[in-house]
Amino acid sequence: MLTFNDPAKLQQWARLRRMKGEKIALVPTMGYLHEGHLSLIAAAKKKGAKQIVVSVFVNPVQFGPGEDYEKYPRDEKADFAKCRKAGATAIFLPSPRMMYMDDHSVYVNEESLSTGLCGARRPGHFRGVCTVLAKLFNIVNPHFAVFGQKDYQQVQVVKRMVRDLNFGIEIAVAPIVREESGLAMSSRNTYLSPVEQQNALAIYGALKMVRAKVRKVGKLPAATVRRQIAQFLAKNSLKPDYVEAVDAETLQPVEAIKKGVVVLIAAYSGKTRLIDNIII
Amino acid sequence: MLTFNDPAKLQQWARLRRMKGEKIALVPTMGYLHEGHLSLIAAAKKKGAKQIVVSVFVNPVQFGPGEDYEKYPRDEKADFAKCRKAGATAIFLPSPRMMYMDDHSVYVNEESLSTGLCGARRPGHFRGVCTVLAKLFNIVNPHFAVFGQKDYQQVQVVKRMVRDLNFGIEIAVAPIVREESGLAMSSRNTYLSPVEQQNALAIYGALKMVRAKVRKVGKLPAATVRRQIAQFLAKNSLKPDYVEAVDAETLQPVEAIKKGVVVLIAAYSGKTRLIDNIII
Repeated sequence: MLTFNDPAKLQQWARLRRMKGEKIALVPTMGYLHEGHLSLIAAAKKKGAKQIVVSVFVNPVQFGPGEDYEKYPRDEKADFAKCRKAGATAIFLPSPRMMYMDDHSVYVNEESLSTGLCGARRPGHFRGVCTVLAKLFNIVNPHFAVFGQKDYQQVQVVKRMVRDLNFGIEIAVAPIVREESGLAMSSRNTYLSPVEQQNALAIYGALKMVRAKVRKVGKLPAATVRRQIAQFLAKNSLKPDYVEAVDAETLQPVEAIKKGVVVLIAAYSGKTRLIDNIII
Repeated sequence: MLTFNDPAKLQQWARLRRMKGEKIALVPTMGYLHEGHLSLIAAAKKKGAKQIVVSVFVNPVQFGPGEDYEKYPRDEKADFAKCRKAGATAIFLPSPRMMYMDDHSVYVNEESLSTGLCGARRPGHFRGVCTVLAKLFNIVNPHFAVFGQKDYQQVQVVKRMVRDLNFGIEIAVAPIVREESGLAMSSRNTYLSPVEQQNALAIYGALKMVRAKVRKVGKLPAATVRRQIAQFLAKNSLKPDYVEAVDAETLQPVEAIKKGVVVLIAAYSGKTRLIDNIII
């Protein structure tokens, strides 16, 4: 497995590989890799990528003031070993200074899909996400990039960016990977105390309940369900950040929860903000 | 010469050419081509491009409300003939709907170099420029793109975008092409009445005078010179939009005009806004 720190060197290498006709996959991550990330690498392999580039970069621009940029967990040595074992062919470990010059001044903004949900709660988050992904897409110029469904809104925003800026990159989406307990895997789970972890199970619990009910009755009024979920989360000592039911493509709120609708939850367990979602 | 209307087809073709090892140049234009544009094609040829793609697209997003998007001159048939004669190998003539879907929502913003000069006078202009160029860069993925020095601020903004978003494209700059009278060539010159055209000569006249004086005395106070130029323009029935002396790289205003400083003018002759500049 090759290691790159310098964007220019990775770009040069990736272009050469592409010239050779090799299929290139990009798996963008913020590191501290778990089974969820490794499933993205596995998906890239399954899709026939000859080169699988995993980027490990905690992107400062997508964190707001007061968020956890400083304390976000990092373990490059473990990430390196996991990437190699999972079958990545290159790992990209740039420093923030290599990605953002002191006078960096160009940003990519998605102005529609990113305004609700996490975008509403984390102003500037998707501007940071779009900017760093535009950079990574240009550096690696992959045939496809793999994202996790856990960041559902991110997937939709990235697909839109690829379409609107003509990146010509396929966006592949891999399903959410969960702990045996049902908790969606996240690098941030490492913040949770045992009790907070136990409480956090209510998130997926609520999503599963909604899906089961809709399967039984066909559809449910979104307003009622959202209120019920919020109450259920609160009863489990979680602080809901948002509970939403939206159209899978437009991310616009729906009135009725039925097949094809996405229900999304962001909630705090202690001080840790967790997100999860389910496609009904 | 090939003709493309569909971004996806051009992208596919350009990638194939690149796979074959051919050097690709992009010359982005808004059409109604004049000698200035043709000099960009000639520059691309001289730099050894095997494929020279000229895009002809009046980009609605870079025009503000009340600007001349609707009446901007267009002549695709003449542009086609001129491109072929000049040695372009492909012309890209997309419709606005092919470039911007109804729900287009992703934009590229440069937030530093684009704030002054034309950016201050035309809010949103460089957002439109950066967005359409990001699209064209991704569609054509050229080895280099050629721009005219006449749009000096645009050149600096585009270079910054290429750096900050890691496009990996060389930006080549060709000198300003002028009418025999000295007037910088521009598609908008077609708006000018004979009298307005005569008055417009004062723009380059002023720039040449400054350069000659600085060559003689070494440096001049920017504030005084700017005031003198504005008066000179007014005396020639022009309405100055701005007269600035800036650092060639940062575009920050300077106190003294000396070697390496750029003096830029935007001024109205009648209702037509003209720009010009000179590197001292």
